[in-house]
This record gives sequence, structure tokens and C-alpha cells, in this order.
Amino acid sequence: MRHGTGAGRDRGRVHVTQESRPIRTAAIIAVGSELLTPFRSDTNSLAITGRLNEIGIEVASKQIVGDEPQDLAAAFTGALQRTDLVVVTGGLGPTSDDVTRPTIARALDLPLEESEDVLERIRQRFAVRGLAMPEINRNQALVPRGATALANDNGTAPGLWIEVGHRRVLLLPGPPREMQPMLDLVVREYLAPGSGNMRLYRRVLKIAGRAESHVETLAQPVYSRWLAADPRISTSILAAPGQIELHLGIRSDNPDQARASLERAVGELREVLGLDIFADDGQSLEEVVGGLLRARGWRIALAASCTGGLTSARLTDVPGSSDYVDRAAVTYSNRAKVEWLGVPDDLIRDRGAVSEEVAEAMAIGVREGARVEVGVGITGIAGPGGGTEAKPAGTVVIAIAWAGGRRVRTFRFVGGRAQVRLQSSQAALDMVRRWLLEQT
Amino acid sequence: MRHGTGAGRDRGRVHVTQESRPIRTAAIIAVGSELLTPFRSDTNSLAITGRLNEIGIEVASKQIVGDEPQDLAAAFTGALQRTDLVVVTGGLGPTSDDVTRPTIARALDLPLEESEDVLERIRQRFAVRGLAMPEINRNQALVPRGATALANDNGTAPGLWIEVGHRRVLLLPGPPREMQPMLDLVVREYLAPGSGNMRLYRRVLKIAGRAESHVETLAQPVYSRWLAADPRISTSILAAPGQIELHLGIRSDNPDQARASLERAVGELREVLGLDIFADDGQSLEEVVGGLLRARGWRIALAASCTGGLTSARLTDVPGSSDYVDRAAVTYSNRAKVEWLGVPDDLIRDRGAVSEEVAEAMAIGVREGARVEVGVGITGIAGPGGGTEAKPAGTVVIAIAWAGGRRVRTFRFVGGRAQVRLQSSQAALDMVRRWLLEQT
Repeated sequence: MRHGTGAGRDRGRVHVTQESRPIRTAAIIAVGSELLTPFRSDTNSLAITGRLNEIGIEVASKQIVGDEPQDLAAAFTGALQRTDLVVVTGGLGPTSDDVTRPTIARALDLPLEESEDVLERIRQRFAVRGLAMPEINRNQALVPRGATALANDNGTAPGLWIEVGHRRVLLLPGPPREMQPMLDLVVREYLAPGSGNMRLYRRVLKIAGRAESHVETLAQPVYSRWLAADPRISTSILAAPGQIELHLGIRSDNPDQARASLERAVGELREVLGLDIFADDGQSLEEVVGGLLRARGWRIALAASCTGGLTSARLTDVPGSSDYVDRAAVTYSNRAKVEWLGVPDDLIRDRGAVSEEVAEAMAIGVREGARVEVGVGITGIAGPGGGTEAKPAGTVVIAIAWAGGRRVRTFRFVGGRAQVRLQSSQAALDMVRRWLLEQT
Repeated sequence: MRHGTGAGRDRGRVHVTQESRPIRTAAIIAVGSELLTPFRSDTNSLAITGRLNEIGIEVASKQIVGDEPQDLAAAFTGALQRTDLVVVTGGLGPTSDDVTRPTIARALDLPLEESEDVLERIRQRFAVRGLAMPEINRNQALVPRGATALANDNGTAPGLWIEVGHRRVLLLPGPPREMQPMLDLVVREYLAPGSGNMRLYRRVLKIAGRAESHVETLAQPVYSRWLAADPRISTSILAAPGQIELHLGIRSDNPDQARASLERAVGELREVLGLDIFADDGQSLEEVVGGLLRARGWRIALAASCTGGLTSARLTDVPGSSDYVDRAAVTYSNRAKVEWLGVPDDLIRDRGAVSEEVAEAMAIGVREGARVEVGVGITGIAGPGGGTEAKPAGTVVIAIAWAGGRRVRTFRFVGGRAQVRLQSSQAALDMVRRWLLEQT
């Protein structure tokens, strides 16, 4: 085991030597009683998994424990036996609730020693704000013997990097903006140099407007062939409301070959799934629609009732979207449909607010008012109330209008209010996407 | 150990006898390699935690493992040593990837036996659709000796309930709509009868428009007293963008006393935090604002640029919100501000689209056009681009207008585009809430 000189001093040095065994597998442990309530998920582990995957390290398990030293010690000891790298997040604060530092030191049988460098950094952090360091923060300067402290530019808790024989232990603070820069540093300077060229390459394909079974029936004969290929391509199918995802992965030490294999694989899936695939590298549907509008120099305007602004909120989630989103109307009341969109009063009365005629009039009205290339109209019953026998909750009508014509579809979505709204905005964006692809 | 007669037959019977040790702690293990990618979280465990908490069972750890028998066996064995109940979700399908059933049976040293009842149920599931059961599904009829199979009305995989000395093991399928009914059944018929009257009672207070340090400074002297109280009240503070949450919990066998203690605790926090508390039982800000509007019989109209429909999407997320949301305009282009809201062209030119004058004109314009009691105007720079030295990204101006007047505030939010948008909609809803509370 390498004995560090402690405390932030070695930030620039590479610690992985030739004889090190490569780090292949990792376990992530999140510490915090609040993560064991029904209200909170651990999201740090997703960011950590992403960064580790990039350098070919696979995550074999994730665990969440409360602020209980015994539970953390059991989780940590188990993880260290089974994986090359154990990442622990959270519990590095200064109070007695923060159990990570002493518990891990005890589990590794390493004494805690006060680091002058770390102590000085913490003092300075308070000093720049004109404050004296509270005595309790002195705890955070305790470092297990031989560990390297990782400076924290966004908080007082230093991270810790510990080499234990062939294995590695990384302790990171819980708040993402403190955790993230340390993770980047450790990946770049400690883990990547020892990882050889082995990397995990991924492509994420996304499909809108199709059932999972439909996608699987078409895709399964294709991807089952890849399991025997060299390099082997792993595939998983995941269903989200209004969206199916195909995740392809290759573990390889040859970047060009891996990327070429994935590109061929994407091509094979395109042959069977065609335009149903809206993204072949993880893009969101709103990014794809925005990119198609931008490429044509066109603008869009939306009018919706039941989605209540969700579709425009998604489209404008994309930075720079003000270039192609002109306006959107959320017209819950019929009066707003008449006043802003010019939908004729008697059309609403005769056909009902949820009808193909009114959806078309909304799309045409918002487009003409905004003088843009594409207009979208969405009207429906998100539920749970408001449905009738002829138009049950989940009935949603979507229209798009352009200079040369219009298109309208009636959907019957299943699920609760949030799911109906999400599927509606997904279907509307997908109708716009398919129409844009037809325009050359 | 109780030896069941197998397979779904005992659904109605209560299995907990007088001499059973009460179940106090649980561990949850989610099985599935897709849950170890950067793309997916385990969400089942939140629902399971909520149900177990209701009957006084605390979750001591959560773990996620891939489809690897060795990893699952290690996680399961560790969990069974440390907790009274181990819940395993996922991996109960019929394929070789589905490792839960054989792995748990082996870890408990129980032989797998085919259950005629379960087999018949699976056959019937296929038969009603006119299909023969594929031979591979026969796997799902294998039940560890002594276990009780739990019928699955929404899929082929039965759940399994296993009593191991004083401990309990529950295997549930991964898909929520299959998992949920079995969880309800087990809580009602197997766990609740043995749990005595001990329950976990919670209240979640939410605070808008204040920093975590501000809330903690005021609240800490209050809740630190409760730790010595009987019953003891536990408290945790959680920060989300634009929102601070205080979670209070009491473990008690006396519901009236627990509820009264929590009510007193909420009252003490109200004394120091006052109207900053917008919810005292977990309600969302949009529900609270909707409730206040409904109570007064008033309606609202919104006009926004930088939040792109997020505020109206949140308000209309609440079922029945069409009663009080009249309309919302997302006016990205200046022309839309002029045409829909009547904002004077020269005001935008002279003051800039992001200015207090324009925000006010938007609020007034949308309110008057809609002829409703309250109008909201939001204009700002969500970023990352579009900022200037005087108005950097994150500058957001929010105005509300009513018959008797108007109110406007300029904010400087920090964070990325999504965070600025979320904080903006939070601040706008909170301004409306505070104003509504002043109107008697």
C-alpha cells in the first residue's frame, strides 16, 4: 500500500503504478438516513456510474445505508470483498451524525490523524467570509493514515482517496456540486491512467409511438445475433411512458472498432425500425424536434389545453430554443381559445372542446397569429375527472398545421393524469418530428 | 418455521402467531442489471418504504444488484443477518437472466418444488388469450419448500412469502403494477397483524423563498428540544431548488398522542417560521396555491417567457385545476407579448424584454384579457446564453397584478437553465400564495 503524504498536496500526481491490478468493478454506497425515507432517491450514484463506465469500470452494486456506523461498516466490508473500488458518498460533515470518516477508518484499521493542510484549508474557507472556524469543523481535518485528502472548493468536507492493497476506496461528500469536481479529478488522475484502454461504449436509441412488444418483436432477431459477435454487443430494452429505449453497450480496448461496431448495430436496427427511431445517441425528443426546426430555419407555435404547458416547457428546456419557439398558448377556458386562437365559438359548442375540428382550429389559429411555419393544437381530457362515455379520460386530440395543410389524430391514452399529459406531449412532438422529416 | 401448503392457497389466512417477534427493520434489494446503468433509478423501493413505514417498520438499507447470483446471494445473506424482513424486487421472470428465485432458495437451503396451483394459474393466464403456456414459463411455478406463493393478477410471476425462524423474506416482481397489489396484500394480511400498534407518524413541512441556513438557524433551537421529548420527534432538513423541507417523525403505539405531538411541533415551527411555511403536510406549492384560489372562488392567468410553460404545467398538474386556471401565455417572441398581452411595443424597446415594467405589463395584460382576479407575468434569462453584464443569465423578473394594484420583484437565481426555470416558477407561485393569504 502506498502511503500518501496527506492532505491535498498530491493533487497533480498519478498514483497508479505499472504493477497495479486494473480496476474493473465498483460498488457505490450512499450514506444518509434521509435516503431511506419514501421521499428521496440517491441520484449521485447515477453520475458516478456514468463517469466510471466511461473508463470501463462497471458498477456491480449500489447500496444505501442510514447514519448508523454498524450498517455502514457491514455494507463497506461486504463491498470491499467483492469489488475493486468502493465509492462512499455522504456523511463527511462535521457533526456526530456524520459517520463515514471514522467508520471507514475503523473498518480499514487505520488511525485518524489530524492533517495540518486540511485544517488550514477549512480555516481559510471561513476566514474569507470573515469568520472563525467553529471548533466542530476540526473533525473534518481528520484523515485516515496513508489516505490522500481531496480539496473541496465548494464546501468544507474534503474527499478521501485510500489505497488498500489492490483495492481502492473513495469517500466523497454528498452535495453534488462538492462531489462532482472531486469525482472528475479522481477519474482523470487516479483511475483513468490505470484503466488501460478498456472502455465501455454505449449508444442509446429512443423510439416514440410504439409499444414495447412491437419494438421487441422487430429488434430481438437483430440484437440476439450480436451476443455471439466479437466484440459482443449487449442490449437492453427499457420502457418509459410514450418512449421505448434500446441501450447498446460494448466493452472494448479499441475505440475505432467499438464505435464502428455500434454504428453498424444502429444501422441494423434502423433497417427494421426505420423512422420510429427518433434518437440514436440519447437525445431527447425535444432536442431532436428543435434540431430539425433549426436546420430548416423554421419556427413553431403551440396551443394546448390538457397538457397545460408541458409541451412548450419541454421544447424550451433546450438552450437556444428561443430561436425557433415563437409562442405557446395554454387555453384552459373556451374563451381563451376564442380570443387568442380565433377558434369559432360555435365550433366549440357544436363539436365540443375535445374534438378534431377544435384541435385543427387551434393549430391553424396559433400558427396564423404567430405567422410561423408550424402550428400545434392539443386538446383532451387529462383526467381523472371530466371524461364521458364517448370521450373518456385519456382522450386527447392532436393537430398540426402548416401552410399547405394539416394533420389530426385522436389518441386514447391510459394511465393517471401525469402519464396522460406526458404521453400527449410526447405524441405531439413526435407528430411534428415525423412531419418535419417529410419536408425536404 | 411454518410450512405452508404452497401456492396461493392461503391468501386469506393470517400467518403471524402470538409468539412471533415483531418485525421492526427491513432491507430492500432490487435486482436488475439495468438498475446499475447511469440511466435508471430504483423507484419501487420508495413505494415499499412508504408502506412499511406506515406500519412502523423502518428500512435500514437498500441495495441494488445486477443479474448475478453471487452478488445477489451476498447482498441477501448480509441483509438477512441484520434485519427482520428482507424484500427482494425483480428477477422473477422465466428466463435464465431471472436469478432471484433459485438464488434465494439456495441461500436459504430450501429445495425448489413445482407448485401445481401456481402452474395452473400461469397456464390459465395464457389460456384466456387463447395461447398455450411456453415451456419456459414453467420455471415460474417453482416454489421454495414451505414458501407461500402470492397470486399475480397482472403478470405471470408469482410473489413469494417465506418465514425463516423469526425473520421474513418477501420476493416481489419488478413491474410496479404487479408488485404493488402483492405488497398491499402482504402488509395487510401478514405484516400489519404482527406489528402491534407501533407506527411511524410523519409530517413534512415545506418552506419557499428562504435559504437552508436561514431555516436551520430559526428551526434548530426548536427541534433540538424535541429529541429529549417523549415521544421523541426526529427531524431532518432537506434542501431542493427553491424549497426547504423539514421532515418530522414519531414512532409510537398511540395514534392520538403521536398526532397531537406532531401538531404541537408544527405549531412551534410556525411560531418561528410563520408564513414562510407553505405546506405542513407534504402538499406541493401548486396544490396550496390552487386550494387558496378555489377557497376564494378566484381564477388566475399567467404570462411567461423564460419559464416556457413550466409554471402553468405545474399549476395544471393538479386534478380539477381547470376550475381556477383560465389561460397561460408563453410569449418567447416580443411580437407575442404585444399581440396576446397588449404590452406596448415601445416599452419593450425602451426598457428591454427583461424589465420590471414589461413584467408588470404582462401580468396586467394577461389578467385584463382573461378578466380574472389574478395575473402573473414572468420574464427573464434562463441561460446559459442571452445574459449581459447588467442582466446576467439567471435574472428573472416576476410581477403579479390584481384589480387593486400590482407587485414586482427582480431575482438573480444561480444554477443551470433547469434550476433557474424551476426557481422562477417556485418564486412566482410563492408570490401568488403570499398575496392570496393577505386577501381576507
